[in-house]
Amino acid sequence: MIIDAHAHLVAPDSLYAYRANLLADGGYHGGKAKVSDDDLTAAAANNIATMDGVGTDVQLISPRPYHQGHSMRPARLVHDWISANNDVIARTVELHPTRFAGVAGLPITPGNPVSDAFDELHRTVEDLGFVGVTVNPDPSEGTATGPAMDDRYWFPLYGKLVELDVPMQIHSAGCYSGRETYSEHFVTEESIAILSMLRGNVFEHFPTLRVMISHGGGSVPYQLGRWQAEQLHPLLGGGPEATPFEEKLKHFYFDTVLHYPLALELLLKTVGPEQTLFGTERPGSGSTTNPATGAPFDDLKPVIEAMDFLSADARTAIFEGNARKVFPRLKL
Amino acid sequence: MIIDAHAHLVAPDSLYAYRANLLADGGYHGGKAKVSDDDLTAAAANNIATMDGVGTDVQLISPRPYHQGHSMRPARLVHDWISANNDVIARTVELHPTRFAGVAGLPITPGNPVSDAFDELHRTVEDLGFVGVTVNPDPSEGTATGPAMDDRYWFPLYGKLVELDVPMQIHSAGCYSGRETYSEHFVTEESIAILSMLRGNVFEHFPTLRVMISHGGGSVPYQLGRWQAEQLHPLLGGGPEATPFEEKLKHFYFDTVLHYPLALELLLKTVGPEQTLFGTERPGSGSTTNPATGAPFDDLKPVIEAMDFLSADARTAIFEGNARKVFPRLKL
Amino acid sequence: MIIDAHAHLVAPDSLYAYRANLLADGGYHGGKAKVSDDDLTAAAANNIATMDGVGTDVQLISPRPYHQGHSMRPARLVHDWISANNDVIARTVELHPTRFAGVAGLPITPGNPVSDAFDELHRTVEDLGFVGVTVNPDPSEGTATGPAMDDRYWFPLYGKLVELDVPMQIHSAGCYSGRETYSEHFVTEESIAILSMLRGNVFEHFPTLRVMISHGGGSVPYQLGRWQAEQLHPLLGGGPEATPFEEKLKHFYFDTVLHYPLALELLLKTVGPEQTLFGTERPGSGSTTNPATGAPFDDLKPVIEAMDFLSADARTAIFEGNARKVFPRLKL
Amino acid sequence: MIIDAHAHLVAPDSLYAYRANLLADGGYHGGKAKVSDDDLTAAAANNIATMDGVGTDVQLISPRPYHQGHSMRPARLVHDWISANNDVIARTVELHPTRFAGVAGLPITPGNPVSDAFDELHRTVEDLGFVGVTVNPDPSEGTATGPAMDDRYWFPLYGKLVELDVPMQIHSAGCYSGRETYSEHFVTEESIAILSMLRGNVFEHFPTLRVMISHGGGSVPYQLGRWQAEQLHPLLGGGPEATPFEEKLKHFYFDTVLHYPLALELLLKTVGPEQTLFGTERPGSGSTTNPATGAPFDDLKPVIEAMDFLSADARTAIFEGNARKVFPRLKL
Amino acid sequence: MIIDAHAHLVAPDSLYAYRANLLADGGYHGGKAKVSDDDLTAAAANNIATMDGVGTDVQLISPRPYHQGHSMRPARLVHDWISANNDVIARTVELHPTRFAGVAGLPITPGNPVSDAFDELHRTVEDLGFVGVTVNPDPSEGTATGPAMDDRYWFPLYGKLVELDVPMQIHSAGCYSGRETYSEHFVTEESIAILSMLRGNVFEHFPTLRVMISHGGGSVPYQLGRWQAEQLHPLLGGGPEATPFEEKLKHFYFDTVLHYPLALELLLKTVGPEQTLFGTERPGSGSTTNPATGAPFDDLKPVIEAMDFLSADARTAIFEGNARKVFPRLKL
Amino acid sequence: MIIDAHAHLVAPDSLYAYRANLLADGGYHGGKAKVSDDDLTAAAANNIATMDGVGTDVQLISPRPYHQGHSMRPARLVHDWISANNDVIARTVELHPTRFAGVAGLPITPGNPVSDAFDELHRTVEDLGFVGVTVNPDPSEGTATGPAMDDRYWFPLYGKLVELDVPMQIHSAGCYSGRETYSEHFVTEESIAILSMLRGNVFEHFPTLRVMISHGGGSVPYQLGRWQAEQLHPLLGGGPEATPFEEKLKHFYFDTVLHYPLALELLLKTVGPEQTLFGTERPGSGSTTNPATGAPFDDLKPVIEAMDFLSADARTAIFEGNARKVFPRLKL
Repeated sequence: MIIDAHAHLVAPDSLYAYRANLLADGGYHGGKAKVSDDDLTAAAANNIATMDGVGTDVQLISPRPYHQGHSMRPARLVHDWISANNDVIARTVELHPTRFAGVAGLPITPGNPVSDAFDELHRTVEDLGFVGVTVNPDPSEGTATGPAMDDRYWFPLYGKLVELDVPMQIHSAGCYSGRETYSEHFVTEESIAILSMLRGNVFEHFPTLRVMISHGGGSVPYQLGRWQAEQLHPLLGGGPEATPFEEKLKHFYFDTVLHYPLALELLLKTVGPEQTLFGTERPGSGSTTNPATGAPFDDLKPVIEAMDFLSADARTAIFEGNARKVFPRLKL
Repeated sequence: MIIDAHAHLVAPDSLYAYRANLLADGGYHGGKAKVSDDDLTAAAANNIATMDGVGTDVQLISPRPYHQGHSMRPARLVHDWISANNDVIARTVELHPTRFAGVAGLPITPGNPVSDAFDELHRTVEDLGFVGVTVNPDPSEGTATGPAMDDRYWFPLYGKLVELDVPMQIHSAGCYSGRETYSEHFVTEESIAILSMLRGNVFEHFPTLRVMISHGGGSVPYQLGRWQAEQLHPLLGGGPEATPFEEKLKHFYFDTVLHYPLALELLLKTVGPEQTLFGTERPGSGSTTNPATGAPFDDLKPVIEAMDFLSADARTAIFEGNARKVFPRLKL
Repeated sequence: MIIDAHAHLVAPDSLYAYRANLLADGGYHGGKAKVSDDDLTAAAANNIATMDGVGTDVQLISPRPYHQGHSMRPARLVHDWISANNDVIARTVELHPTRFAGVAGLPITPGNPVSDAFDELHRTVEDLGFVGVTVNPDPSEGTATGPAMDDRYWFPLYGKLVELDVPMQIHSAGCYSGRETYSEHFVTEESIAILSMLRGNVFEHFPTLRVMISHGGGSVPYQLGRWQAEQLHPLLGGGPEATPFEEKLKHFYFDTVLHYPLALELLLKTVGPEQTLFGTERPGSGSTTNPATGAPFDDLKPVIEAMDFLSADARTAIFEGNARKVFPRLKL
Repeated sequence: MIIDAHAHLVAPDSLYAYRANLLADGGYHGGKAKVSDDDLTAAAANNIATMDGVGTDVQLISPRPYHQGHSMRPARLVHDWISANNDVIARTVELHPTRFAGVAGLPITPGNPVSDAFDELHRTVEDLGFVGVTVNPDPSEGTATGPAMDDRYWFPLYGKLVELDVPMQIHSAGCYSGRETYSEHFVTEESIAILSMLRGNVFEHFPTLRVMISHGGGSVPYQLGRWQAEQLHPLLGGGPEATPFEEKLKHFYFDTVLHYPLALELLLKTVGPEQTLFGTERPGSGSTTNPATGAPFDDLKPVIEAMDFLSADARTAIFEGNARKVFPRLKL
Repeated sequence: MIIDAHAHLVAPDSLYAYRANLLADGGYHGGKAKVSDDDLTAAAANNIATMDGVGTDVQLISPRPYHQGHSMRPARLVHDWISANNDVIARTVELHPTRFAGVAGLPITPGNPVSDAFDELHRTVEDLGFVGVTVNPDPSEGTATGPAMDDRYWFPLYGKLVELDVPMQIHSAGCYSGRETYSEHFVTEESIAILSMLRGNVFEHFPTLRVMISHGGGSVPYQLGRWQAEQLHPLLGGGPEATPFEEKLKHFYFDTVLHYPLALELLLKTVGPEQTLFGTERPGSGSTTNPATGAPFDDLKPVIEAMDFLSADARTAIFEGNARKVFPRLKL
Repeated sequence: MIIDAHAHLVAPDSLYAYRANLLADGGYHGGKAKVSDDDLTAAAANNIATMDGVGTDVQLISPRPYHQGHSMRPARLVHDWISANNDVIARTVELHPTRFAGVAGLPITPGNPVSDAFDELHRTVEDLGFVGVTVNPDPSEGTATGPAMDDRYWFPLYGKLVELDVPMQIHSAGCYSGRETYSEHFVTEESIAILSMLRGNVFEHFPTLRVMISHGGGSVPYQLGRWQAEQLHPLLGGGPEATPFEEKLKHFYFDTVLHYPLALELLLKTVGPEQTLFGTERPGSGSTTNPATGAPFDDLKPVIEAMDFLSADARTAIFEGNARKVFPRLKL
């Protein structure tokens, strides 16, 4: 079975028109998103076709990240909006229960406690059967002001995830600094998430917390040597007795959303197939034809199948086994 | 000849005590750094020994980046401090004129025009014989508020560098967001610099501008596929007729400061040996022993020599030729 | 002919999904709104039916006010978004050229000169044939920080409108103070616009400027006595020789968007039928059934026809003549 | 008996010089206002003459609103200043106990809990015999940043007023936004107070709270149809089953401070004579001659007496009965 | 003749009530202060009696400093208010032309150019015959944010004063930091004014500028040794060749407003009688009885007369001659 | 025995280079200052020689004030840095236990509770044997925003000092307002400290708190008459029954760090020899030759010895006895 562990909701315009309306009226109109069954059925069918085209059996779908809007004001708009996304995901799963499973967005908002998202966390996981959550490590969406992920701010969330036996996918949302696009910010924030969680020894407090980093880990596998050296450097607070960085890195899982085969190879050789989950973010920014191959950049299954340094078991783990391990609530 | 294109000043405590004093007195005491000849001679000799130990003939040395302090207030402290660094570099070069060449720090400060740094640029290049400059793309040092490098803010600097035929090395300095260490911020800012300059088509305005990105290009070579795909994606402002990302990337030069051989290999295979300059940042954060090899992480010469996919010419270009091309004022 | 001088665009979800996307991606995706011909044709037909239902021949349509979003950041999003609205209005007019005329939204944004909107003003009036513009007197959308409409800030706009012989309709947009809904803020801002323009003697500088105040003038006709008295009060900067307030008020035109007959009567008796234009904002917040009448609150034609203190000429002026006088570019 | 339920303190310069001094010295001088008995006696006699001139028997007097200065910093200046006003009111009442009763100002200040005003509330009502309080719904005086009156912030005050059986008069104070005069802001804030208290269902929590809105209710009676329609509109969070707006509006009392007879008529026909209290704000901004009548704008008794749609009982209720009902502590 | 070079306006309550009104209404009422001739005549007579009681012939009177309010917002209030003060000073001088001369307040406001005060400067000096100006070195009134007096900000004022041959008296106004009273801030700001003007070498640019420092020079004469030493200290930017501090200090004039004889003696021995002007600030904070002497603290004439280290000429210079030299426009 | 109660650490460059590094790396490197024994021994020997040269037996040494950096961000840098200073002081005392005693710096930082410094207070006094603490009354270092020393903010510190029987020396640190140098700010803050503690009656709550004001009390002894008069002035919150200011001033101790003999004489005559401690701040800003005497400005012993108005007992108290009284933990 081919499980794509990193995919997003395909939704009709009516969902996004609802977001525009929330922003325009400041939440005054109240009410819910009005996504018709017809529109949603069409959107889901479209997605199934996309999956079939590349041989994906199951997608774990979360809200479209750059549309999460965690920094919208007032914060209750974020709650309404994220819930609306999760609702449409739930309906999509219901339409195709053998092809989709839900990964919930969480209404974590700047300046408010992370526990504000717990009602939605319980609702999605316990009531709606979602199998994971996606967490934006920068709810401020580009102001460089919030707490990094080793800050005590986040600990109640980690505890709750451990309690529910649910993994979190790290994926930032929008970026309004004017310096990076949201897509570039994804990479930045994935790197910061890994490095800050290791720097702050989060896994000493939550040894069973499971974290999947999107897009092959940002810059970290590529810059591995830098962090290996600093970890051991006596002038930088390290030392030869320190746990090697590459060992600490095993606390994380990584998806394969790297549209460049050389990079994907580096990832797999660096963190190992046992820490890597097949993911494509398809349809998404990679869904355009690579002139060099004639295939879409995000058609990664053949890329992985062509890697002969991987054993058959390794491939199975990547395509299916690791997803089952990380997302035990997935019952397909 | 082995030219290390990315190295930093080794200076005695008295230089840094001067910085502490500037910060303490707000510049009121006036005066200059007091770095004695004896102390400097000892520090330089130490560095020469470090170079000899790994077979480096020449180092291009710039101020120690995390110590540049571009966000210090008031801005004139930055001017005093950067000049003091450049002065000590000039004295170091004078002590060993066949072993060092200077790469100048620039006093670019948040909220002030980039032209405030031109006096120091002229002084170092024209009076003191420096062969390049190092530019911090984030003088705000972590507040995510300044203009990215495609902003018109930077254009006068680019024009001046072209006029002086001097390259710039991209290297951020401190980081006070509380989210990243300065070292992690290096990687973030290198990525932003590449992506923003390409997004903003800076090289259409300055086709002969030469830019060397530190630390192997941050995250960009690793995340190449993402940017290739977006460049061609019609829904993301791109299209099939767009110049391929990998081609645009040839506008940059990269150093080899990647302490992880697999990453260095990916870099060389991605941007090509003709765009890569030997650099080690040694002594620096990589100057600790890699338990896997018994050698320092930043002893990169044998790593490159061991890469059999590189031709002899490619190696020479990396070790010497590219540096001479990028830094034509280097006359050693 | 019955001309409804205050009506808004009826547009499909795809237009508002575009807004949501602009906000999410910060403008990075570029591109235009994707409103299909089919969707637009359906929306327009729906609106025609609504007009036919209450006997309206022609509507002057502007962007839906609370959706204008003048305070969105960065400001270029406002330009993209307002233009998209005006484009859809132009397409709607093209579909039914005898039933609609366009009133343009303007991308006036907080902290930027009003002249930033002139390109769009020229485009809509001169290229697309719009007959008026709608102006938000509070582009900051509820922060109480921008210049009131007697401030020199606005004068270039007034000059341009006079030059183009185009009226402006005063209508605020969103409100994010948390104290008022956007709808309540409409009333507040209409009142401030009238009072500040008279306080600042704007019409001494622009005697031929034509201004239509929405919703029957906010609170001003009702609070008339207060302003009459203050105008004449020596301790409040006034005096018996001052121009009476009710006379100064004749500089403005008012629409009839008051869903309460007693209020509409007060308006007409206070400012006179010669200053009043038929307007309904239908379909809009008044499009619900008034249990007392069984008709929609915004079906105002019978209300006016029932007012026996109005002469036939007065009625004709209200329904058609005044609109032709205020909007001379209207050629239907 | 003619009771003017909306009138303000007439005080000598020495009271206001005290305010100037407080502001100048930041409260450092300490001490109390120095209002001499002679000056106060003269001021009060002047006011009695003004009342006699228009046939008013009793005035309920509160601090002059635009002089309340709730946004002065530091907040203790507000306490000193409001107490000084209340003291002078108490002395005025003592001079003419059959002609005046006190309505207390409250030192509610931005950013501080409303309970900071409770000491002064108790002092004025219980020790000094005041019969009501005046509340500024915008202590920030024009920054649009404070909580609207449905916010939990205000609930302790409402509870205390219910407990003391004391009504509150809504009347804003200064306005420093640069967009409105304080007098224009009165109207804005009265409207916001009504609409926010109804939106937030304050009277469900405090069914016996009595609130008198100044100046005939701001814009609300005039814009009644707008709020009726929105209340019933399914797309705006309403519906046909909602309590009609005009019914909810009966929770408020209104004064007659509308210097325009048509408007006063609209008020009385809209909210009913049983919800309306005679009030003139005389002497105040209406105390200038209306050229159309030769009488002062604020001489409202003959205006009301001339309204033949009012029964004799209705008139008595307006002039006296309603005031006794709303202000039960008034014992004259 | 005994000339008191540091005295302030004695004005009736009506002037300060005007300030309170300006602050309350934000300047909307317009109009002027209403200070009646009777009240002013009484206030002036009172002051003459105070002068006669201690043998003062002439007072140079300026606005009461702590009441200047330079940080009031919006800035036009400061203009109205300072002008009102200067007007009352002019009227007082007119009442007693042989006993008073005017020293003008200037409407210098935070964030605005110093030239905003030039109209008032010309009006008071050229039209109204004022003989000097009083300048608040901290128009921000306690926020520690404005430019010190060596900043180029102030240079246009210095040029204008030199051009008009008018001296300036340094005297701060209010203080709202919550750390100092306004009176304590006077001392702080006098010290900063002296030290910053000398540090910045203002007198090299304006050698004929005449500056009188209030209250005996703040802390500077007492702390003289500190500044003498720093001026000569090579590690503090000084050196043995520097102009001695005590010599540079001769650029300033000082008044005698020190209510402590030992301090006054130190002043006179430190800066010399030729730099010292008789001043008492009477009536003011020193106008209370010193239990040790039975005389008011601010009755300084006998104190100076009792100093036997002063020659008769020195005394005459202090009491009269220096004032004539510093204020040449004084023609009494 | 001659005890110099106000002296500062003499430390090698390596200590200050550590501070520069802390600021540069944001504390990320961790680690401790690296001050070698050789360097420290040399620095201490140098200081002993300086003491011997002027006959000082014992110095109480605290961190160099302008280098304390209380406003550094993040606050933990201040903790690291102040501890490093105290450590070097402890090592210096250990080198010359008969010549030095420690006065501890405290890591009090803006916006954080004063109790954050208690760990370091206990460590230095109880573990390391320090005899006093130095307190910066303006940890914000020049922003005029923190609480003055009569604010409840400081009370836990006062309580702790009383409990430990340890005095505090008032001495500000840096100043970054751009208006004053740090050295000028010393004087400002000493004055504010005295005046605010007396205004707020701190000694009524902590009658046994012992406070030594640096630099002869800032401006207060010189401006004594001003505060005497205000204390007794009924219009300024005072009165004839108030405790005389000069009596309240006896709550403080003063050092003799006034490099101007006339000023030192004024101090001693004003506060009395029983409140004065010999102090020189040598080596410091006064360590340059006074051309008038040929001796260093800070060689104050002969100055005091030459004052014939002092009795022998008074001199002994100043040189030794008062120090023993104020610093009872001093056991030399």
